[in-house]
Amino acid sequence: MEGTHAALEDLLVLDLTRVVAGPYCSSMLGDMGARVIKIENPKGGDDSRAYGPYVNGESAYFAMLNRSKEGVTLNLKAPEGKRIFLEMAKKADVVIENYRPGVMDKLGLGYDVLKEVNDRIIYAAVSGYGGYGRYSQRPGYDILGQAMGGLMSVTGPRGGSPTKAGNAMGDILGGLNLTIGILAAVHARGLTGRGQRVDVSLVDSVVVSLENVFTRYWYSGKTAPRNGNTNPATAPYDTFQAKDGLAVIACGNQALYEKLCRDVIGCPEWIGDQRFLDNVSRVANMDELKPLIEGWTVQHTVAELVDRCLEAGVPAGPVYDAAQIVRDKHIAKDRDMFPVIHHPVIGDMHVNGDAVKLLETMPRITRPAPLLGQDNVPVYGELAGLTPEQVEEYGRQGVV
Amino acid sequence: MEGTHAALEDLLVLDLTRVVAGPYCSSMLGDMGARVIKIENPKGGDDSRAYGPYVNGESAYFAMLNRSKEGVTLNLKAPEGKRIFLEMAKKADVVIENYRPGVMDKLGLGYDVLKEVNDRIIYAAVSGYGGYGRYSQRPGYDILGQAMGGLMSVTGPRGGSPTKAGNAMGDILGGLNLTIGILAAVHARGLTGRGQRVDVSLVDSVVVSLENVFTRYWYSGKTAPRNGNTNPATAPYDTFQAKDGLAVIACGNQALYEKLCRDVIGCPEWIGDQRFLDNVSRVANMDELKPLIEGWTVQHTVAELVDRCLEAGVPAGPVYDAAQIVRDKHIAKDRDMFPVIHHPVIGDMHVNGDAVKLLETMPRITRPAPLLGQDNVPVYGELAGLTPEQVEEYGRQGVV
Repeated sequence: MEGTHAALEDLLVLDLTRVVAGPYCSSMLGDMGARVIKIENPKGGDDSRAYGPYVNGESAYFAMLNRSKEGVTLNLKAPEGKRIFLEMAKKADVVIENYRPGVMDKLGLGYDVLKEVNDRIIYAAVSGYGGYGRYSQRPGYDILGQAMGGLMSVTGPRGGSPTKAGNAMGDILGGLNLTIGILAAVHARGLTGRGQRVDVSLVDSVVVSLENVFTRYWYSGKTAPRNGNTNPATAPYDTFQAKDGLAVIACGNQALYEKLCRDVIGCPEWIGDQRFLDNVSRVANMDELKPLIEGWTVQHTVAELVDRCLEAGVPAGPVYDAAQIVRDKHIAKDRDMFPVIHHPVIGDMHVNGDAVKLLETMPRITRPAPLLGQDNVPVYGELAGLTPEQVEEYGRQGVV
Repeated sequence: MEGTHAALEDLLVLDLTRVVAGPYCSSMLGDMGARVIKIENPKGGDDSRAYGPYVNGESAYFAMLNRSKEGVTLNLKAPEGKRIFLEMAKKADVVIENYRPGVMDKLGLGYDVLKEVNDRIIYAAVSGYGGYGRYSQRPGYDILGQAMGGLMSVTGPRGGSPTKAGNAMGDILGGLNLTIGILAAVHARGLTGRGQRVDVSLVDSVVVSLENVFTRYWYSGKTAPRNGNTNPATAPYDTFQAKDGLAVIACGNQALYEKLCRDVIGCPEWIGDQRFLDNVSRVANMDELKPLIEGWTVQHTVAELVDRCLEAGVPAGPVYDAAQIVRDKHIAKDRDMFPVIHHPVIGDMHVNGDAVKLLETMPRITRPAPLLGQDNVPVYGELAGLTPEQVEEYGRQGVV
């Protein structure tokens, strides 16, 4: 059986999402074999079609996040557009949207309407603050999720200001939770026979990602300080300056610390030093320990010191930037994290691969991202019963 | 039907995971109704039982991440321990582990062995570098995932050093991807009749979270700089100093910028300023724009300026720390992100709630985290056919 199936091959997903959080989710579903139909407004489509980098006039960013999707245009404000959408919703398993909560209801296409035409449909939404709660109508952006969810408060140099993760981490966490919610709701439908709403917010997603931050707060009354790259629970566990860059050395327990001193650095006398006798004292005196270790690391290249540590069984690795990551054979080759696909306008392009390795139904990119409205004729023919002539006429009317 | 089902109520999960990434995944599964049996070594159990904060001698951290799980002890090195595990694996839907790759194979309990006794089993593993590839045997920690996956390279103050997200973000992303992989594999089993391996690495998980960082690299040859809290694509989109703290103002488009100038700050002349005419010029001149905006924000409290922005439709919010988040009524009350549960030793305690809101099968915490070996007698009675006397004898022998 294996190899002939894709994990989600029986699911039909109508994808109304734009920009990052929703498209990240739907591209995962598409790579896992779901049939994802991306529905864009006829006037320009997904906002991220306007995000660089551009190649031959097309957004490579859009192309990366929207592979493995078919693409149609539809004006959800036009009565005929609504009718076409409802016709497709009858056949769909999942609808995904990331409008501000309430927009779909105002369009007359909210969950209450969709479930009347298809009570098995799963209606999945991701927004800044969620579909209910007193802030649900606030406009949300990734940076607000990171700020109000607390991630910024714990990130940054010691003594420095709250710092945003450099990627759209709030969107990514929201997209991952949305994917989990959709798959759980599909499973639940097998038990109940009915679909349901899935509601994910960026702020909630960031909050739960902080794991022990809140537990510590509840019992100490103290908010977590920003710790740079150190770990308040163990030391040495930090970045260290090498000859040609930064490296991580991470000693999670006493045995690893002893190996580092004795077998890697050759200073066994540090093991018995009263300041560094056990993990608790090393955490308390990490500012005295770090320069000692760095006195050794600065004499070596990152590659040398990582090799030396790993030979001794001490966890270590380089601090990579994008250029180093795409050249790393483990990441790029063995784990296939930058597959090349062919886009009709951009040409051959690298995209980000999949982190969820399903060994018998491996995610794979099924098609390049759609040009705007590319699949209108076949999709509306199949799922809304329209002839090519009708699709053309609706195009002239601005319905599709 | 609704309300009487939990989304994953028909799944039996054997959970061998420790510390963060795996337990984060299995607590989500448990909250969504799966029966999760946490299997710990009889000598002390999960390492995170030794992580603070402690309350009445119990780790509140462990208790937070391991709710909604039953708990047994088992020595997987003992022949009788292996036999008991295999007996339970016959009945399980999912086995989850986060050992270093190969450990389960060496124990004689790898996927190849488990699928012989149960070809429907899903074997899900999360590790630093994944179960295959040239680094698979390296020891992995969260900080290495963040460093080698590139998150640190894009996070931090402008001109500053690579900075770790202050939480265990690599572990969290890995745990979320593992959850997705398990649910997708359960779905695929419905199509193929067979289980499979799910393999997730922290490094892969961080790599794909960086979205546009790699796309920009492929087309510019440049690695992304650290941008503090700014956004290289739009401005103003940053943190701003208020009278009593930091606030975010996020203008994702021209209309929002114009509202900010005219309706919030009362400086409509900034709209036509040549330096700030459109988004491209505002990004180029953000260092001149920020002090102008901050000249206004420093005169107001965070709460005042957020209100003023939101009234005008401009996205804004506070930069919260843990103490502020747990007091925020939207987050804590409306979204129920800090439910209180009763733990037999710790007493009533707040734990982190669930970010995946399934409106008809809402995740809920089914039980407090287990004391070490708490459920040995009932679980081994039911799933391994052992009498209470046999469990007791195995306890004396160090098997359970």
